[in-house]
Amino acid sequence: MSFETTKKIKSFGGEIHKLTHESKVLKCQMALNLFIPATSKSKLPVLWHLGGLTCNSDTSLDKNLFHYWAAKYEIAMVYPDTSPRDSNHPGEHDAIDIGSSAGFYLNATAEPWSENYHMETYIVDELPKALYAVYDILDGSNVALQGHSMGGHGALTLYLKYPELYKTTTAFAPIANPINGPWGKKAFAGYLKTKEEWPKHDATELIRAYNGPKVDILISIGTDDQFLHKGEAPELNELLIENFVAAAIESGHGDEVTIYELEGYDHMFEYVGTVAERHIQHAAKHLGVY
Amino acid sequence: MSFETTKKIKSFGGEIHKLTHESKVLKCQMALNLFIPATSKSKLPVLWHLGGLTCNSDTSLDKNLFHYWAAKYEIAMVYPDTSPRDSNHPGEHDAIDIGSSAGFYLNATAEPWSENYHMETYIVDELPKALYAVYDILDGSNVALQGHSMGGHGALTLYLKYPELYKTTTAFAPIANPINGPWGKKAFAGYLKTKEEWPKHDATELIRAYNGPKVDILISIGTDDQFLHKGEAPELNELLIENFVAAAIESGHGDEVTIYELEGYDHMFEYVGTVAERHIQHAAKHLGVY
Repeated sequence: MSFETTKKIKSFGGEIHKLTHESKVLKCQMALNLFIPATSKSKLPVLWHLGGLTCNSDTSLDKNLFHYWAAKYEIAMVYPDTSPRDSNHPGEHDAIDIGSSAGFYLNATAEPWSENYHMETYIVDELPKALYAVYDILDGSNVALQGHSMGGHGALTLYLKYPELYKTTTAFAPIANPINGPWGKKAFAGYLKTKEEWPKHDATELIRAYNGPKVDILISIGTDDQFLHKGEAPELNELLIENFVAAAIESGHGDEVTIYELEGYDHMFEYVGTVAERHIQHAAKHLGVY
Repeated sequence: MSFETTKKIKSFGGEIHKLTHESKVLKCQMALNLFIPATSKSKLPVLWHLGGLTCNSDTSLDKNLFHYWAAKYEIAMVYPDTSPRDSNHPGEHDAIDIGSSAGFYLNATAEPWSENYHMETYIVDELPKALYAVYDILDGSNVALQGHSMGGHGALTLYLKYPELYKTTTAFAPIANPINGPWGKKAFAGYLKTKEEWPKHDATELIRAYNGPKVDILISIGTDDQFLHKGEAPELNELLIENFVAAAIESGHGDEVTIYELEGYDHMFEYVGTVAERHIQHAAKHLGVY
């Protein structure tokens, strides 16, 4: 697979490559951003950022400071898109929580999404293999994940499904137990053929059943996150990080999960920007550059 | 004049206040952002950021890291809008270089703009007086300016017109000689009744005639800025920073202007983000906090 470079932009001493490529898995053209910091090294660790609902591959690049820190620690960053685009499925662009910009980082099994909504295979297999084959500077054996909101769900679930692929993950205000929150329930009901499949894509259920190598997961959350729906009906809580923590404790991984609360912060980009340094330092430590 | 706080958002330890107010000068409701860092001080210096063409009061807040550095040095920041809004002048929203988002930080004298396109009075008088009266933490006697592109034009001209109001200014890729560039010529022809008024709003002509107190101006520019139109007809150059420097030398202020070139950077937000630290350190030094 080859990439087309639509633009290169200098930034924080390094370079942003704005790329497009044809994805066989997703059956469409996909855009992504690749940040390569200035370096004298021949191989760089790679940090993938998975975006949230309504985001595309540009959103987190434009609105956060991740690559300021990535430049500092000489980590390459990949910002993939959050779903296939323009597949012409009925209702694909009608809701924020299913369809375009809402791929939920899983392989859909229910029609029509099962045709090409295969973000899990795209993120863990097709796209990294293609990138690491073309960009020699990327060390495909030294990779970490992070994600925000729906991307936090992606980062937690893909890490727990494929611990051999990633050194660590961090999650900003993740949807940590989607089978029990409104967004997740709607998306899973749409994407998955049977309810039996739901736990396989739920971070809380994955850590409850996890018996792989020791993990070290950082999750941050603003105490005023609007999607906690504090003071409202508890079933409105979209994130349910407390369920993830309880399941981690239950399966003996409680001390491998760090929760960092930011007093008074909400769900959005000012919160993410504020806590970005801490997340990237966590990743950098596991990638051997901090 | 009173402000309505539409939202407060925690960010980098401080707080963004999203404000609206009724401007008498501009005859419309205006939005702005105010960033107040965490501090134990009772008064904070104030840095105003003037945005460029197509921008509103949110653009530079969302896309740059200014307030990361402002938080560090305990500087409050004001992000005003770039023009009046919805004045119903014919063609107000039709072009990027005149009308809404293109107020050029001057008081228009030609109809219909003369009715309310008075960004100069708004930025140097109405808005600061109103803000400093309401927000005790803002030290209205310790203020600096900065701006990007058209906002760089604003920062340079307002500083040179009112050196008593500002400790310093910095400009990111400014339109430094608008009377000789396409954007500036079009805007000035629209906003100003006679061509005799043009030099009064042109940074190059202002520094050529400047005989106020010693200045210390930082201007940065990416060598691949697309609006330099390198390799094309020289009359397409929108920025003409070299004319500003020549005029400064001519009037004996050559050593009071620092030009910082960034090799390979363009005009947009990645360039601004990359050089933000240096600009804010320049301001912080003059504001006595660096």
